[in-house]
Amino acid sequence: MSTPITVPRGLKNVIVTDTEIGDVRGEEGFYHYRQFDATELARTCTFEDVWHLMVFGSLPDPGQSEAFARRIAALRVIDGATVDLLRSIVTPETDPLAALRVALAALGLADRPLYDVPAADRVDSALRAAAVVPTVLAAAHRLSRGQEVLDADPDADHVSDYLRMATGSTDAEAADALRTYLVTTIDHGFNASTFAGRVVASTGSDMTSSVLGALGAFLGPLHGGAPSRALAALDDIGDPSNTRDWVRGRIESGEKIMGFGHAVYRTHDPRSELLKSVVQQRFNSPLVHHATAVEAEIEAAINELKPGRRLYANVEFYAGVLMSEVGLPPEMFTPTFAVARVVGWTANILEQAAEGKIIRPVARYVGPLPAR
Amino acid sequence: MSTPITVPRGLKNVIVTDTEIGDVRGEEGFYHYRQFDATELARTCTFEDVWHLMVFGSLPDPGQSEAFARRIAALRVIDGATVDLLRSIVTPETDPLAALRVALAALGLADRPLYDVPAADRVDSALRAAAVVPTVLAAAHRLSRGQEVLDADPDADHVSDYLRMATGSTDAEAADALRTYLVTTIDHGFNASTFAGRVVASTGSDMTSSVLGALGAFLGPLHGGAPSRALAALDDIGDPSNTRDWVRGRIESGEKIMGFGHAVYRTHDPRSELLKSVVQQRFNSPLVHHATAVEAEIEAAINELKPGRRLYANVEFYAGVLMSEVGLPPEMFTPTFAVARVVGWTANILEQAAEGKIIRPVARYVGPLPAR
Repeated sequence: MSTPITVPRGLKNVIVTDTEIGDVRGEEGFYHYRQFDATELARTCTFEDVWHLMVFGSLPDPGQSEAFARRIAALRVIDGATVDLLRSIVTPETDPLAALRVALAALGLADRPLYDVPAADRVDSALRAAAVVPTVLAAAHRLSRGQEVLDADPDADHVSDYLRMATGSTDAEAADALRTYLVTTIDHGFNASTFAGRVVASTGSDMTSSVLGALGAFLGPLHGGAPSRALAALDDIGDPSNTRDWVRGRIESGEKIMGFGHAVYRTHDPRSELLKSVVQQRFNSPLVHHATAVEAEIEAAINELKPGRRLYANVEFYAGVLMSEVGLPPEMFTPTFAVARVVGWTANILEQAAEGKIIRPVARYVGPLPAR
Repeated sequence: MSTPITVPRGLKNVIVTDTEIGDVRGEEGFYHYRQFDATELARTCTFEDVWHLMVFGSLPDPGQSEAFARRIAALRVIDGATVDLLRSIVTPETDPLAALRVALAALGLADRPLYDVPAADRVDSALRAAAVVPTVLAAAHRLSRGQEVLDADPDADHVSDYLRMATGSTDAEAADALRTYLVTTIDHGFNASTFAGRVVASTGSDMTSSVLGALGAFLGPLHGGAPSRALAALDDIGDPSNTRDWVRGRIESGEKIMGFGHAVYRTHDPRSELLKSVVQQRFNSPLVHHATAVEAEIEAAINELKPGRRLYANVEFYAGVLMSEVGLPPEMFTPTFAVARVVGWTANILEQAAEGKIIRPVARYVGPLPAR
């Protein structure tokens, strides 16, 4: 028996694996997918092209791009049995992500262990699991409101089709703004849900189990990324002139400033900067003016009350504004985040499956010793 | 930014958490639940009493014992909607554990984050999630064979009721043998599925998500623990006199000897020893004689062909024999293992939730560097 190795609690800073999928450079305010600046991809690429990059390691050429988008569009369609299943379980109180858990489990009933299937079939299962997510979430959302389900359109692109299925909107400008957000949030270094998905995958389990592991961690409040909280803070503050007192109150009661600060970034969050420019250019609305005014006030207040804290708006802040502007209701903000992040999870699960080694640490027993 | 910490691949030997739930001492051939020898508990305690020990940290007094068994029995009952759900998804090819994934997700639609609910409600969700497992697995198994579902009996004990629901058998001797096996396999140190469940729970996610994470890892071939493979090896060998040649063939082709050897035990597996004595005492059958003869032959062959390898029969070997003797078909061996292990998972999830700290290691990016 080798001696157990002591590391910081929660495996903080412990390297669990090598990856070629991407990285975050917190000090630089920079993150990348493969070798590409993620915000640059969000400015210039379709969601499907970046998806191709995440899974296959390269941006597609025009022929590949068209073929891949067609492949995803076909996989986005769910069958009547799945809609019936959702109909049988969804109530007005159902969180669409909880319904997604059921639907993914049902769609994955015949999944086989990752290590037992050829790599091409593993990729197929990854694309399948990720492609149905917008369709299932939109259906669950509409059923929870007593609305009819809108079928997926295999001729549409992924983001436009999601927006239409969720809200009914076919506004191309709105879909393009949403595309920017969704590309920025496909992946973000080695986050907690990605790690959970990789832990499950490392046992050689199936794609569905691995995605459910990632989704499970994603549902945890410590995972972070709930843009509706930042939007709720905007409501809570009301007039920007109230901001100083509101921030003071949060700091004094030891609460977090929702939408501000990040575990890794020590400078402006590059996602927030991009989404801010998008909402300013596209939506010259009272909400956008309100958000930018409050952001400036919050930064000023933090500088005054907590000098040197370097808390800047994170992705949640303008993501909430953007999703609200494209017509998504707050209860669909976190589900919409999942529409993108599932692409990152599945790319990571495929990478883990290719590694083929189990992740299995140990625990230290600290309870009463057995009498022997 | 602190410097990333390099540790062995797969976090081997890395201490990820402290635990008071139990431990395995591989060199001693000993494992314990809390401060009690696990095989001793399996000889002397009801399944429910050991469940109480795992969750609450102490064996119940007689009053607590009765109350807890009644509580579990009530939670074992599933409603008509869940049976209908199973009926709508199960086909002759459905693995009961894949159906369990769907049922748990459906039963957990309204689950709330672990950190948002009082400890007593967390315990309730843990007992609920674990108590339905035998009922769901037995129902899925019977539906896959076109048989009618047998309802749970809230007046029965957990193990007898599972055996009856799965096989129709009300044989008390068989149920008691099965009880011994199930108690031995509730937990076993910090195994891969337990770790996966704790990773999900550490984000503050809900009980259902955490159990699904554990179950997902449990389904991975590298998790280990598929007693049907050991039984299949017995079939494969046929007459014990063929054993030497069979073992030689496996070793020469680099294959594992199913049912022999363990990642932690360097001596006899205490579970195997106990289950061997149980099947020898209870079932004086040709299968038991065959198994003991083959076991002796395999040990002799390994000693001859791989001197010093110290490969002994592990829990799979006699677990398969025992489950076969009590009337469970091989496709229910791994599901039966889950009936017990879910108790260990939920105890671990509760411990992790009480710790309240996220498990989030890092990855090292080794792909092409972005041009900046």
